[in-house]
Amino acid sequence: VWTDTEISRRLGIRYPIIQGPMGGGYTTPQLVAAVSNAGGLGSLGAYTFSPEQLVETCAKIRSMTSLPFSVNLWVPQPEEERLAFSDADFLSAAKRLAAYRKELGVADPIRPERYTQSFAAQIEALYEIAPRAFSFTFGIPPSQVLRECHKRNILTIGVATTVDEAVAIEAAGADFVVAAGSEAGGHHGSFLAAAEESLVGTLALVPLVVDRVKIPVIAAGGIADGRGITAALALGAQAAQLGTAFLVCPESSASPSHRAELLSQHAYHTTLTRAFSGRLARAIENRFVKESKASEGAITPYPVQNWLTQPIRQAAGKASRPEFQSLWSGQAAPLIRERTAANLVESLVAETDRVLAQLART
Amino acid sequence: VWTDTEISRRLGIRYPIIQGPMGGGYTTPQLVAAVSNAGGLGSLGAYTFSPEQLVETCAKIRSMTSLPFSVNLWVPQPEEERLAFSDADFLSAAKRLAAYRKELGVADPIRPERYTQSFAAQIEALYEIAPRAFSFTFGIPPSQVLRECHKRNILTIGVATTVDEAVAIEAAGADFVVAAGSEAGGHHGSFLAAAEESLVGTLALVPLVVDRVKIPVIAAGGIADGRGITAALALGAQAAQLGTAFLVCPESSASPSHRAELLSQHAYHTTLTRAFSGRLARAIENRFVKESKASEGAITPYPVQNWLTQPIRQAAGKASRPEFQSLWSGQAAPLIRERTAANLVESLVAETDRVLAQLART
Repeated sequence: VWTDTEISRRLGIRYPIIQGPMGGGYTTPQLVAAVSNAGGLGSLGAYTFSPEQLVETCAKIRSMTSLPFSVNLWVPQPEEERLAFSDADFLSAAKRLAAYRKELGVADPIRPERYTQSFAAQIEALYEIAPRAFSFTFGIPPSQVLRECHKRNILTIGVATTVDEAVAIEAAGADFVVAAGSEAGGHHGSFLAAAEESLVGTLALVPLVVDRVKIPVIAAGGIADGRGITAALALGAQAAQLGTAFLVCPESSASPSHRAELLSQHAYHTTLTRAFSGRLARAIENRFVKESKASEGAITPYPVQNWLTQPIRQAAGKASRPEFQSLWSGQAAPLIRERTAANLVESLVAETDRVLAQLART
Repeated sequence: VWTDTEISRRLGIRYPIIQGPMGGGYTTPQLVAAVSNAGGLGSLGAYTFSPEQLVETCAKIRSMTSLPFSVNLWVPQPEEERLAFSDADFLSAAKRLAAYRKELGVADPIRPERYTQSFAAQIEALYEIAPRAFSFTFGIPPSQVLRECHKRNILTIGVATTVDEAVAIEAAGADFVVAAGSEAGGHHGSFLAAAEESLVGTLALVPLVVDRVKIPVIAAGGIADGRGITAALALGAQAAQLGTAFLVCPESSASPSHRAELLSQHAYHTTLTRAFSGRLARAIENRFVKESKASEGAITPYPVQNWLTQPIRQAAGKASRPEFQSLWSGQAAPLIRERTAANLVESLVAETDRVLAQLART
């Protein structure tokens, strides 16, 4: 049957359906566990987590499921490591967002010790947790990390937005590669060229990657129902990864206003923007995105912009002000409906069965 | 069987495989006839043709095949009709390209009476020719044109890059709609919003359109082999349209250097640019594209830029200088191989059979 692929076998999951690891807290332990319990692979988007949060959250997941799940981290890129941000630079970057803080009653920020978690410390926590799979975005971890994962029986999954990135991920020794097309919501994890130069549609990217690597390929971007999963299989993928479809499940932490936008006509119009984090990401266009377009050159690089906009986005979520939220969304959002994660996984399987049966009749 | 869809039945073709109508002379009578004779739908990209050329070319096609083919025209958009270009504007636009003309030995241009063919006159020729299908890009013809086509038993096919455009095309009374994803090569025929705001990947666009219109949908963009055709069928399309794959057939008029680029590693890196025509189009990145990026704001609008760069591109093609040619290419180009159009159609059918059989076994 279609559910039996090298990826589902090696991960030990019933269906080759992966819930995308959406960072920033969207992937609650409840969501991850529900997806895994339903036979898919739940994924914890953990790039913002401290080592302690990571250990604690995975313990919670394990209290709700004994089935495999994955943890996703962002690999630090050289330029962000080099980023020496002076007090003056910080103040002028912060000042550019002052009007939004004022409108939402958010306090002015104080320059932090660091803008991101320590990747090395997160990796130590990962070893301790030893989830079934570790997926990484925005680069490739040092080879020692991949070797240690293999030693600890943690499968490794790299995210590629181009064929070159997929080839590099295979060469580094990863077990699987995600071919993430330009339709995908949230961050576009390019790392060998600028994200703007690395936008390949999923329908083209998947067969291109399949033809160039030997490791199994996971299709991501623009998939939201059984038609998309069947298309991914036809293109040669051995699993499909869906993010946005899981974002509207009650188990995710997406704000009510974010959910409402995803289920509205606005979801027909997503855009790629660096406004929220300094890195290119796909979201439903709103006032914050539009206003930042006028001064695109003035967006502070990641991770500073990400750190600076976080309290604004959080306050906007609490205040139900979608115009200031990062309304992450893939291009297939209008295909989704609100339902529990278990229900969603079941529907995806039933739809894929149905589409395959239709194709078989032809 | 999969080949029997509403589209193949109504067009009277054996396979629901359409050769994309690539304007600018690429689709020679030989190519169109060969595709139709092989059981697909050959398409003549005729937007640059005078009425006389159109009649003559279609007569040539009919001397080589008695099977159905289609003719594609570009619908004039309001802003180009309004374009009143002064002598001074023309000279300064022409001057921006002087270095390229010098490098290729192209004479300086003289301001023409008009930059495009008369659409009304082309439509009169179309009625006379009465091909099996008329496809239109960059808008929707006046309703009278669609009514006349129906009267004359010419099926009408609109090209949509967004769901809104597909809905408008259906509302206008077209028989079929092409859902043209952002992977597609050549011009991105958006007409309700800016092309830059209308870039939806094929994997997302096709099911979104299928869910919103009742007329049959043709998938285009990123399809170059049987995997892509099967994916298109899984997504709900009733036919697949391929452009770039036919561009390297010996029957096309693509220059030897354009072919060589399409079959090289360069084809992994296409980009969207307004440099060649003033309208957004996908091509392999070359020197001309890169240099124009630096001064993107200085590109003259369509149709003037298109008219001005044409002699440069033609001379570059003759001189085998790919760095100055419009190297139109879709994102799936690395999947293609050089072979006759008949061979390509046969291979696509055989591959689709094989992929469907593989899926049926699962």
